Amino acid sequence: MTYESSQEVCPITVNKKRIAERIRRLAQFGMNEKGGIDRSLGSRADIQARAWLKNLWTLELDAEVETDPAANLWAERKGKEQLKPIVLGSHHDAVANGGKYDGAVGVLLATEVVQSLKEADYRLRHPIKIVSFSAEEPNPYNISTLGSRLITGVLDPEQTGRAAHSYTHERLSETLRKLGGDVTKVSDHLLNREDIDAFLECHIEQGRHLVDRGMSLAVVSTITGIYREEVSIYGEANHAGTTIMTNRHDALLAGAELSLAVEKVVNDLKRMDTVGTVGYFAVFPNSANIVPGESHLIIELRTSDDQILQSILKQLTEKCIEIENKRQIRISRKKILDQKAVPMDPLIRKLLKNSIKKSGESYLDLTSMAGHDSVHMVPIAKTGMLFVPSIDGKSHCPEEETRIEDIVKAGNVLIRTVIALDKELD
Amino acid sequence: MTYESSQEVCPITVNKKRIAERIRRLAQFGMNEKGGIDRSLGSRADIQARAWLKNLWTLELDAEVETDPAANLWAERKGKEQLKPIVLGSHHDAVANGGKYDGAVGVLLATEVVQSLKEADYRLRHPIKIVSFSAEEPNPYNISTLGSRLITGVLDPEQTGRAAHSYTHERLSETLRKLGGDVTKVSDHLLNREDIDAFLECHIEQGRHLVDRGMSLAVVSTITGIYREEVSIYGEANHAGTTIMTNRHDALLAGAELSLAVEKVVNDLKRMDTVGTVGYFAVFPNSANIVPGESHLIIELRTSDDQILQSILKQLTEKCIEIENKRQIRISRKKILDQKAVPMDPLIRKLLKNSIKKSGESYLDLTSMAGHDSVHMVPIAKTGMLFVPSIDGKSHCPEEETRIEDIVKAGNVLIRTVIALDKELD
Repeated sequence: MTYESSQEVCPITVNKKRIAERIRRLAQFGMNEKGGIDRSLGSRADIQARAWLKNLWTLELDAEVETDPAANLWAERKGKEQLKPIVLGSHHDAVANGGKYDGAVGVLLATEVVQSLKEADYRLRHPIKIVSFSAEEPNPYNISTLGSRLITGVLDPEQTGRAAHSYTHERLSETLRKLGGDVTKVSDHLLNREDIDAFLECHIEQGRHLVDRGMSLAVVSTITGIYREEVSIYGEANHAGTTIMTNRHDALLAGAELSLAVEKVVNDLKRMDTVGTVGYFAVFPNSANIVPGESHLIIELRTSDDQILQSILKQLTEKCIEIENKRQIRISRKKILDQKAVPMDPLIRKLLKNSIKKSGESYLDLTSMAGHDSVHMVPIAKTGMLFVPSIDGKSHCPEEETRIEDIVKAGNVLIRTVIALDKELD
Repeated sequence: MTYESSQEVCPITVNKKRIAERIRRLAQFGMNEKGGIDRSLGSRADIQARAWLKNLWTLELDAEVETDPAANLWAERKGKEQLKPIVLGSHHDAVANGGKYDGAVGVLLATEVVQSLKEADYRLRHPIKIVSFSAEEPNPYNISTLGSRLITGVLDPEQTGRAAHSYTHERLSETLRKLGGDVTKVSDHLLNREDIDAFLECHIEQGRHLVDRGMSLAVVSTITGIYREEVSIYGEANHAGTTIMTNRHDALLAGAELSLAVEKVVNDLKRMDTVGTVGYFAVFPNSANIVPGESHLIIELRTSDDQILQSILKQLTEKCIEIENKRQIRISRKKILDQKAVPMDPLIRKLLKNSIKKSGESYLDLTSMAGHDSVHMVPIAKTGMLFVPSIDGKSHCPEEETRIEDIVKAGNVLIRTVIALDKELD
């Protein structure tokens, strides 16, 4: 049985009830009393979720299931020809007290697409694979997008394996081993351009662009660049009573000025695709009766345009010099992340948009302001992302939600897109 | 043998070498590898210092030594008449990694005054007592000026006894018991106006007023009022990438603005006796990639003038409303301390100044911007304080120092003042 992707009605559609039920089911692994999901790498909930996914893929999709050395989970349904696979997926881990949709939607829709094709007895020319990456989210090992970065060679396996869990102090190499991975084998199993033809990730938007416009779908044009620097401010701790105002070198106030400067410089740009945040701020000795002698903060800047980033940094440097001189303190800055913006593949973007139009839907062209595993798939495969709305723009919290109707729309668009890709790609 | 306090030369003087040696000796109890002193309540160093002081007073002063229910140490040398005693003293504890002089100078000069009088065979009409108060400094039980507040009835003994050590979790009642105190007996042994005639405390300035003028002595006119409030700022935690700038309710930035407002409002007053500090600042969840949803800070204001305090608070309230409206966040404020400024006794101030003049020295009239045990002695006795310089204005640190020559000058002024007080008081 074959279907033209150019048909207005695609007879293969996802099963709404089944998707809803699986989202509910996956959310049981790690649900806490507040209704949030605790499912970090190596947790009992992670182990349970992995077992459930592998079981689902084996039984329902009749797929070949595999765990790679980075403990990423893969399932494969063979194609009619000897071609590189089309891969769909996302991640199944969650931030602490996170939501039911982030990552889960992408993995379960990938599952649904493969199952719907199978049930329609529609076999692609290309093999189709599902992936669920390890530890995409911030986690106790302090390495996010772990699985995608390890298996694409961005992270050094040996060094990464030595990372330790913040609380249990278990080595990451040991955790991955328990999950079926093996850091010593990563180097021999790195993904490259020969392994995958296209990668498609559906994800929740985590912002308000779609909900504010009452729309269901966005095609990602670019994934934002993320720049982070650690700023250490050295003033002088002193008695908060006996040190007169003009003799102070207050590291908290210096940090306060710098934080407000980040906001002002970014606000002045009035760009929707550029944000700046000080999310981490620590003061020493942090005592009510001592003028703060030291403060440490992390500045994060996200933009799709590197020139904008450089212009912000130039203005912040000027501000730092001004603060140093005014307060007679020392500011030391260290770049800790400089992930450049990544454009999505033009062919996939075009096919996603065509599929959306044929479904009778409209779409938003959007810069993803969150990082995703897709960033690391770009050098390996033609990569594209589809966003569904987050109600109230909320994510990484128990209230995180996406309407099932929107998830179904996304699933049907994915089916059309996969069929179209299967025809277009060699 | 009697001496006129009106003589220009007072034949009774302190022993410089002995004071220097005792400062060195007391500093051995709790000295850490950085040269700082760790001598908090109930520590091994505290226990050693107490044993050493009691031994010193017993052997060298031939005094009656006593530990009161708040574990304050007392030594008494009888007078010629049945009168209320004149008390000299300070405290022997230290902040973590503190200095050798804070508290120690006052206790050791009190000791030296009594010993010098004894050696000169000069017996006062009044009994003379030395006191070393328990836990004057911030400590792991989070109760400073503990000894003076407990024994003067400012603190509820039962409730205070339930306080627990931050690390060992030992109850304060148990700690005091080990040191010879007993919270259950505090109520029956409260100090009142019948117990003490005058209290004199010599202390390091902990600021730069004396050193900046090259002077040796200051007579304290007033001990500053200390006002503290806990400010909780409730914004909205959100994704630092996907939340556009105009949708943020950033609790860190609100706290930054408020902290800078404290500085500005106080600076605008241009008063030497008024300071404002945000020493404690905590942000939640404090993660580089999350817009801060909550921040907590403590504002401390010190001034000798309550009207000034009210004017500052009025301006801060206006600023809070402005920040709440601008950022659409909620600011909740809670007063946690409102210790009014306390004037020192006019007679003692006059006698201190006369004694300084007769010694051929000059003095500074100063508001103490630090709190002291003396604050709590004011309702009980005529109370006065004498300050010696802190080199570079440093205190509560290993570098804390006062020149021995200045300590000797203070000791000799104390002797003159005690002799004058002994004549003036009934």
